[in-house]
Amino acid sequence: MRYKIILAYDGTKFAGFQAQPNQRTVEGVLKKAVNKIAKEPTPEIQIYGSGRTDSGVHALGQVVHFDLPIEMSEVNMLNALNSILPLDTVVKKVEIVDQNFHARFTTHGKKYEYRMALGKFVDPFKRNYTGHWKFPVKIELIENAIKDLEGTHDFSSFVASGSTVKSHVRTIYQASVREDKAQNEIIFEFYGNGFLYNMVRIMVAVLAEIGSERRPVDDIPRLLEVKDRDQARGTAPASGLYLKEVDY
Amino acid sequence: MRYKIILAYDGTKFAGFQAQPNQRTVEGVLKKAVNKIAKEPTPEIQIYGSGRTDSGVHALGQVVHFDLPIEMSEVNMLNALNSILPLDTVVKKVEIVDQNFHARFTTHGKKYEYRMALGKFVDPFKRNYTGHWKFPVKIELIENAIKDLEGTHDFSSFVASGSTVKSHVRTIYQASVREDKAQNEIIFEFYGNGFLYNMVRIMVAVLAEIGSERRPVDDIPRLLEVKDRDQARGTAPASGLYLKEVDY
Repeated sequence: MRYKIILAYDGTKFAGFQAQPNQRTVEGVLKKAVNKIAKEPTPEIQIYGSGRTDSGVHALGQVVHFDLPIEMSEVNMLNALNSILPLDTVVKKVEIVDQNFHARFTTHGKKYEYRMALGKFVDPFKRNYTGHWKFPVKIELIENAIKDLEGTHDFSSFVASGSTVKSHVRTIYQASVREDKAQNEIIFEFYGNGFLYNMVRIMVAVLAEIGSERRPVDDIPRLLEVKDRDQARGTAPASGLYLKEVDY
Repeated sequence: MRYKIILAYDGTKFAGFQAQPNQRTVEGVLKKAVNKIAKEPTPEIQIYGSGRTDSGVHALGQVVHFDLPIEMSEVNMLNALNSILPLDTVVKKVEIVDQNFHARFTTHGKKYEYRMALGKFVDPFKRNYTGHWKFPVKIELIENAIKDLEGTHDFSSFVASGSTVKSHVRTIYQASVREDKAQNEIIFEFYGNGFLYNMVRIMVAVLAEIGSERRPVDDIPRLLEVKDRDQARGTAPASGLYLKEVDY
């Protein structure tokens, strides 16, 4: 039986999604929980995520699949996983899917949200759950500029130097920004067919600079053109980033 | 010069407010910051809080005062403290007050808020910031029962066994509860002239049991009468408790 699960996690205390030796990772705790349920140590059950998230990055709707040699109902799997998983990880939904489903290879799109807290000082309750930008922001400048990211582009200016993928061409179906005045936050949303290493965080840093007039409002077409990471400069902190949804 | 400061802190990583040897406490980090600003190691400047908060308990409006041998404007003090303090503590307001003000001895009232998350599983993003109650709740039962706590009573049934104060008589000016349906939380608020050790957390545990019909709706007058801590049973977790306001 193949199980698709949708899970949320607070990334603060994880060294990212992907399993690494001697590190606490989402994949690590989840794989351990699944194997505990299966009670079959050999062969070890592998789990497959839609993609990695970095250390400190959160998920509201990460998707993972795995094959279990025993049969268990969706609701029993949900309860079993949540009774084993640590409190910073929760399974929101379990679905039995057919063998054609693959969490990584059959994705159609991913949606990321970035929450940026404004104000002079960091709110202690938001320090792990938002980025922070202390400069005044004109939201209409960001609204204007963010549309330049939509479409199919070579995002070489927006990829961290550690990336090893061959192509930097990705499609952003939709990019938007809104203000949450009650929370004094700016919330960015990006929906696309895939994102490069640190791509969302670099885009957000550029957009914040545009919003504070530290960079011209029409700078994004230029950055896409020059394909030079150094010209994008900053990377917004991991704490504000949420993997919100993965579509298949 | 006497300075009154209002501060917020995320209590998750503090061993409570009060300074203790080899423990990270709010008083400890604040005292260190104040003494760094004063640049006078002898005699050491003492700080006085409105009262303690336990490990894991948060504050939105804790009040502290201290005397500084040098003169500094309110805004400069605010900026100086926030540039030194760790990110889980923030000073929201600084006020120069006269020598009659004392953060602990001149309080008129304190307001506490308790946030209880409902639902079967713990939300990973709320695990340090709410209590959790997985049983169905009838809010009208709590609304009814909570009013029995208002007024002047002997709260001996609602004090943790570690308490050493002589009198357990306190006055609750106002006690209320509301539902936040969007967040799926119940929020309790208590405003009184003082609170005993764990008193709010014990009251919340009793009220939650009443809301889930695990205890009769008229049980509070009986508990106040019997003055027996064992009959109140539970203590809601520290993570949901916020010191919201201190009045003078």
